[in-house]
Amino acid sequence: MPRYDVLTIGNAIVDIISRTDDAFLARAGIEKGAMTLVDAARALEIYGQMGPAIETSGGSAGNTVAGLVSLGGRGAYIGKVSEDVLGRIFAHDITALGVHFATAPLAGDPPTARSMILVTPDGERSMNTFLGACVELSPADIDESVVAAASVTYFEGYLWDPPLAKDAILKAAGIAHANGREVAMTLSDSFCVHRYRAEFLDLMRSGTVDIVFANEAEALALYETEVLEEALHRIGEDAERFAVVTRGAEGCVVVEGAERRAVPATPVEHVVDTTGAGDLFASGFLRGYTAGRSHEASARLGAIAAGHIITQVGPRPQVSLLDLPGVREILR
Amino acid sequence: MPRYDVLTIGNAIVDIISRTDDAFLARAGIEKGAMTLVDAARALEIYGQMGPAIETSGGSAGNTVAGLVSLGGRGAYIGKVSEDVLGRIFAHDITALGVHFATAPLAGDPPTARSMILVTPDGERSMNTFLGACVELSPADIDESVVAAASVTYFEGYLWDPPLAKDAILKAAGIAHANGREVAMTLSDSFCVHRYRAEFLDLMRSGTVDIVFANEAEALALYETEVLEEALHRIGEDAERFAVVTRGAEGCVVVEGAERRAVPATPVEHVVDTTGAGDLFASGFLRGYTAGRSHEASARLGAIAAGHIITQVGPRPQVSLLDLPGVREILR
Repeated sequence: MPRYDVLTIGNAIVDIISRTDDAFLARAGIEKGAMTLVDAARALEIYGQMGPAIETSGGSAGNTVAGLVSLGGRGAYIGKVSEDVLGRIFAHDITALGVHFATAPLAGDPPTARSMILVTPDGERSMNTFLGACVELSPADIDESVVAAASVTYFEGYLWDPPLAKDAILKAAGIAHANGREVAMTLSDSFCVHRYRAEFLDLMRSGTVDIVFANEAEALALYETEVLEEALHRIGEDAERFAVVTRGAEGCVVVEGAERRAVPATPVEHVVDTTGAGDLFASGFLRGYTAGRSHEASARLGAIAAGHIITQVGPRPQVSLLDLPGVREILR
Repeated sequence: MPRYDVLTIGNAIVDIISRTDDAFLARAGIEKGAMTLVDAARALEIYGQMGPAIETSGGSAGNTVAGLVSLGGRGAYIGKVSEDVLGRIFAHDITALGVHFATAPLAGDPPTARSMILVTPDGERSMNTFLGACVELSPADIDESVVAAASVTYFEGYLWDPPLAKDAILKAAGIAHANGREVAMTLSDSFCVHRYRAEFLDLMRSGTVDIVFANEAEALALYETEVLEEALHRIGEDAERFAVVTRGAEGCVVVEGAERRAVPATPVEHVVDTTGAGDLFASGFLRGYTAGRSHEASARLGAIAAGHIITQVGPRPQVSLLDLPGVREILR
């Protein structure tokens, strides 16, 4: 049995989350719902303007492995922090969950990445990310023994932003496939898809990636279409194994070639903060998938985890996801 | 009109909050429900053992002024942080609310104070505080013009733990009274009362303090009795102006000499985290009091603010308290 169900690789980020209103986003020139990269000066400017915040470990792939472990899975993580206070917070939070995390921290500058996340009253989050130490993630950080020991290696499309991480991912994918493991990715963000459309398609069509996670906006962006049906058709053709397209409150569709399986979302009375919704969907799906559950059952687990995370502030679960209604039944 | 409704003075602390269970508290030797002071080594030990956490600005008096401002009051704060990442987070969060905060940060060690707060499934919080830079708060940090400009100067009993803060408080109280202002304090914690009982009684009996906030356990500890009636009687005699004794779900009693006014608590369906309950009660009470509301109306405002804060994680409100049901009616 592989030592880890899932290894995730991503930008290691501490989130700085503040509730605000749409007028603030407009005044501060922040793109609503997007992840926007900012430099150190703009990061300081936004921080100086934004309201009081809470700090929590984040980073898309970090959130996914946190959710996976909270669901009883076995996880590992690779991501670059610096040897500073935020880096120690990130490392504490992920290892305290039982996630294997041994990426060497950067000594000195740039500091640990942070994302200033503004949450509007509708629960939508708008992220402003200073990549900091993440720009130093490189192939040297890929531990072959960890990749070889994970059923699935999962990474973020966001990793195409820092300069060396894509080489790290290609190395990891090679190791995974050489050991008979699978590789999954998330398209991360529709703006990110616009930046790296050709490369993401190539990852899928070359078989570097077996499983693709995308939300509706990302899938549409990938094929430059406004027609969901077309995007679903084409992503089904391009995905080596299958694709999972999430549609918010509309649920999700698992697309495997020409086959489709739609699974409804878990109803949520009041959305507090959508930060981490997609990340936690992936946690649930991958937990089910690596435990041998059907795509449909795995998607239901994803829907439960995503439905929970949007009822709290921040992208990391504060309670055991195993205790959520319906979870143990699926994993039994 | 005074420039500030309330100036609060306290230990400036960043909270590191994690959900856990009673078994962990027992294993780690943590006193449930208390604020325990820890040194740097013990702080590291507890952090190494505890689960993933979120970070938020805290500190009892800091929470109180944050709540006061969230209720539309005008606030100032005095407390000592260091010039480090946690110190910058603390300063950002309090000034972003519109609180006047100009205490000079400490250059270098010790670092900004942090409290590791373990929250059990019953919502009770157990705090382990490393005082860090707070031990350097001294009379030099008391800005006479700010004290003179505040209707009420409010401080924490916790300030008797660091060595020089009590002199700072005596200086502030002298300035306040010389300017015809009032001085209020909270007894903070029953263990803290055990440590400084004689001094706290002297602050009240000497008229250094006009208004006293205490919870039931603290009032009982102050008079070394198990009989609430006795504690209420004696605190009514000792308080220069009046005392407010909070009793959790039982509501509170305002005691002014022999007079008593009981006000019920705001019903809460599910207590998530009691961190900051007493601090936010004081926010509401002082907001009403400095706006000229009756003790009873002020206590209702306190109950609303406290009732809200225990439904979320952490002691700082993430939404405007002015928008809570009943608040605008009382302040109109």
